[in-house]
Amino acid sequence: VTQIPPVGTEWVVDARGCDPHKLRDRAVLEQFVARVLREVSLNAVLPPLIHVVPGEGGITAMVLLAESHLTFHTFPEHGTLTANLYCCSERPPWPWPERVTEVFGATRVDVRTLPRGGY
Amino acid sequence: VTQIPPVGTEWVVDARGCDPHKLRDRAVLEQFVARVLREVSLNAVLPPLIHVVPGEGGITAMVLLAESHLTFHTFPEHGTLTANLYCCSERPPWPWPERVTEVFGATRVDVRTLPRGGY
Repeated sequence: VTQIPPVGTEWVVDARGCDPHKLRDRAVLEQFVARVLREVSLNAVLPPLIHVVPGEGGITAMVLLAESHLTFHTFPEHGTLTANLYCCSERPPWPWPERVTEVFGATRVDVRTLPRGGY
Repeated sequence: VTQIPPVGTEWVVDARGCDPHKLRDRAVLEQFVARVLREVSLNAVLPPLIHVVPGEGGITAMVLLAESHLTFHTFPEHGTLTANLYCCSERPPWPWPERVTEVFGATRVDVRTLPRGGY
């Protein structure tokens, strides 16, 4: 058996019980994206792409990183926020549950940590 | 215990043993992205973002979808391609292993299927 090392790590974050008003607030999500970039020392290759779904829908944010990518989708109708941070260079874990709870009022946050490319 | 339904499904694809030349070929990746969009009936909100890492590096492709997102990263130095397809409306499974093997020459393709937002 050949052991193949991973090329990176992806953190898959699912948060429930969030405040729907926060999940519809573009400025709140933009500030959160900026905070993750800053606190995890990530390098955005391009400015974040933000897409607000028309009507009562949620918001998508995507950032192309030198380290891979960061994405968010919010679902105000379900009180749900999901995030992916894929990082192909090492980073210490970030306190996703505490931060998502603080900013979006989540009542439950699950974080899955996936090795990518070899496991 | 409250059962919370998922908001979507994410397919996490890791392919090894790929042809490094294919992994550095922007046109090959662009055509593959277009094929996934077409064959899975996905709706791109914006044109795909493509970023070629300078030197001998790989390529990143990101697509903001009405259905959530599609991302690719290639690592020619490892013969590795990784993809994420996050879809918040139902889709039949797509034959990732067969397609990635056909186009990039992968020798092994693993697909993980993650429910998102409630599980």
